[in-house]
Amino acid sequence: MKAHVYVTPKKTVLDPQGQAICNALRKMRYAGVADVRQGKCFELTLDDNLPLADARTEVERIAREVLTNPVIEEFSFRLE
Amino acid sequence: MKAHVYVTPKKTVLDPQGQAICNALRKMRYAGVADVRQGKCFELTLDDNLPLADARTEVERIAREVLTNPVIEEFSFRLE
Repeated sequence: MKAHVYVTPKKTVLDPQGQAICNALRKMRYAGVADVRQGKCFELTLDDNLPLADARTEVERIAREVLTNPVIEEFSFRLE
Repeated sequence: MKAHVYVTPKKTVLDPQGQAICNALRKMRYAGVADVRQGKCFELTLDDNLPLADARTEVERIAREVLTNPVIEEFSFRLE
């Protein structure tokens, strides 16, 4: 089983990396991009014998306690 | 309209960051994680008057030409 965790800067937090990319895209004449935000994604390979409910709890705990800085970031995840 | 672009190291490329996270998780006694791969994700806010087909073409072009290093990375994207 795979878990995908997405960690992004909170909406209220300035994202200079994203802004730099957005400015670069405009200078390079890519049309139609109003804003860019950059985040991190993690692909966790889980043991196949882990029950789905446990996997969900564990991934949520890992995302909250290890992968995310709660001051400036938020996360979402999905299992597949 | 939003576009989400996910850039991850190719399967054949070593991912030391992901391995470090995986080792850390094991030392911290999180159960059931066999492997971790780390990538980047980008949230592009697109102009609302951009037609869907054009948006798809443009995001695919941006992802391929700007956001991804084709030697070591691959990408996927979705529009919403």
